Amino acid sequence: MKTNAALIALDWGSSNLRAYLLDARGEIVATRDDASAGASVLPPGARHFDQALMTLVGDWCSQQPGLSALACGMVGSAHGWREAPYLPCPTDITRLHTQTVEVRTSTEVQVLVVPGLIYAPADGAPDVMRGEETQIAGVLALRPDLTNAARVVLPGTHSKWALVRDGCVTAFATRMTGELFAVLRRHSVLGRLMPAFDADFNASAFEAGLDAARATGGRDLTHELFAVRSLGLTGQWPGAALSDYLSGLLIGHELVAGLADTEESIPLVLAGEAALCARYRYALLRYGRAPVAVLHDTAPAGLWRIASAAGLVEPHEASNE
Amino acid sequence: MKTNAALIALDWGSSNLRAYLLDARGEIVATRDDASAGASVLPPGARHFDQALMTLVGDWCSQQPGLSALACGMVGSAHGWREAPYLPCPTDITRLHTQTVEVRTSTEVQVLVVPGLIYAPADGAPDVMRGEETQIAGVLALRPDLTNAARVVLPGTHSKWALVRDGCVTAFATRMTGELFAVLRRHSVLGRLMPAFDADFNASAFEAGLDAARATGGRDLTHELFAVRSLGLTGQWPGAALSDYLSGLLIGHELVAGLADTEESIPLVLAGEAALCARYRYALLRYGRAPVAVLHDTAPAGLWRIASAAGLVEPHEASNE
Repeated sequence: MKTNAALIALDWGSSNLRAYLLDARGEIVATRDDASAGASVLPPGARHFDQALMTLVGDWCSQQPGLSALACGMVGSAHGWREAPYLPCPTDITRLHTQTVEVRTSTEVQVLVVPGLIYAPADGAPDVMRGEETQIAGVLALRPDLTNAARVVLPGTHSKWALVRDGCVTAFATRMTGELFAVLRRHSVLGRLMPAFDADFNASAFEAGLDAARATGGRDLTHELFAVRSLGLTGQWPGAALSDYLSGLLIGHELVAGLADTEESIPLVLAGEAALCARYRYALLRYGRAPVAVLHDTAPAGLWRIASAAGLVEPHEASNE
Repeated sequence: MKTNAALIALDWGSSNLRAYLLDARGEIVATRDDASAGASVLPPGARHFDQALMTLVGDWCSQQPGLSALACGMVGSAHGWREAPYLPCPTDITRLHTQTVEVRTSTEVQVLVVPGLIYAPADGAPDVMRGEETQIAGVLALRPDLTNAARVVLPGTHSKWALVRDGCVTAFATRMTGELFAVLRRHSVLGRLMPAFDADFNASAFEAGLDAARATGGRDLTHELFAVRSLGLTGQWPGAALSDYLSGLLIGHELVAGLADTEESIPLVLAGEAALCARYRYALLRYGRAPVAVLHDTAPAGLWRIASAAGLVEPHEASNE
């Protein structure tokens, strides 16, 4: 089979391995994913990563020997395939390729892993990311006009608020909004009055949660959360509305803190999963702060950019073998 | 068997049923508990509550016919034995007995359930309590000098911060500190670096969590929480210290918000489980706010006081049958 593939791009997070076959222009030719191959799902040990990769994309490798793979995410953690460094902020986002690490594979395919970032403020705990640095590289590849200055918000299990200045990530903060929502819904008293299945989006309840978060200035979350129960108990919101109230409350607390740390003049961009970005955009508009762009799935563009800088691929030359 | 029992006092919460046999002076003669009889543990339906009570204290009832039982807690919720009302704040704590509800039992024993409280501020969500109103009655029975004015803090799964003025609970707020600690430790990424078994109390890590909470003014909890992971990942705290850091962070956020809502001049009293109160006292002292008293297990004193007001018992007369 003839292909004109140029790179296997791997977005390899804790819970999922997503593989993209990119052509010589960096366009996506094929996509596959495997939730059983997440870096925290696989048993420890390099050979499990090696096997998982070959199971998912072994045919891509054999059809086109010499193809390289570039991976970002928790695959580079201490419990991943091989530990990649954390680069300290400020980090030039165009220099990530200089600190990739190579893993050993059982086949001929070359696999490199992108480093993570660490931000250690003078007056607080350090913060870390793995995978999001590549998404940020993708954001700047897709929107080079944001290279000078941007607040890049990546909503998710662990949302990241990164500050970009002159092409560098100068600072960032993680907010555990998505994970808090999931564990509170599944494992706390707050989930008890909610129906087992997702109801339709309740905009009023989501807005009420956002407004409550803003009214307290992002303080006293452990109290505000209990309202999810008391509003249900007293019948002020039906059970089917409570998960959107909780979502609004948690996203609201994230936004109040994140926006307080973001100058009014700096453009804000959202990047991530479409439904989640839509929720954050809705919340930002309610807070009077419109994002300049909403981008989805920027990891492939970031991996392509890093691979190009590393010389793994030769952009704009089709490799018709 | 001769007894001089005067009342069966029941502290019947979500996860546990605790029974006290009180003599005619209100002193505890015997104590039993059954974690399989918690109001959220039992299957729905009044007969399960009836059976659970008789299994635990049936012999107390048969040895002394005519004995009454008074119960507080989630036994009076919509999913309990029978729903007792929520009394609106301000509520005179000496008038709780006027709103008890009686349940039907399969035996001759009379069982009454104490009402809960509801506080509906003009500018926020309503808040509710069941069981803590009785603990507060116990606090004021044990420390009548606090009847005029006190901030009563009841640490727990759902901590309650009640304001007492002129013998009335005028306002209160719930903070879900204990439940957040438990679900984050058991079900979130924050628990992954912690050892499976409790380590010795790490005072330095607990203090660091308290200080971090105070430094942010109780804001941005969803970010602060992620430090539990990053401090472990970067080796700044060993895994065995992380649960105390998390505890300090969550208790700190509770205290920052609760103290901001408590006048300097008002005496603060802690009431609850001994180890937990010790942790809160430690935290309060670090924040420069000493409690005037630390009381444990005040529910029996509260139940005795309510039973006395209701005429269920005749204090100071031994019932030697």
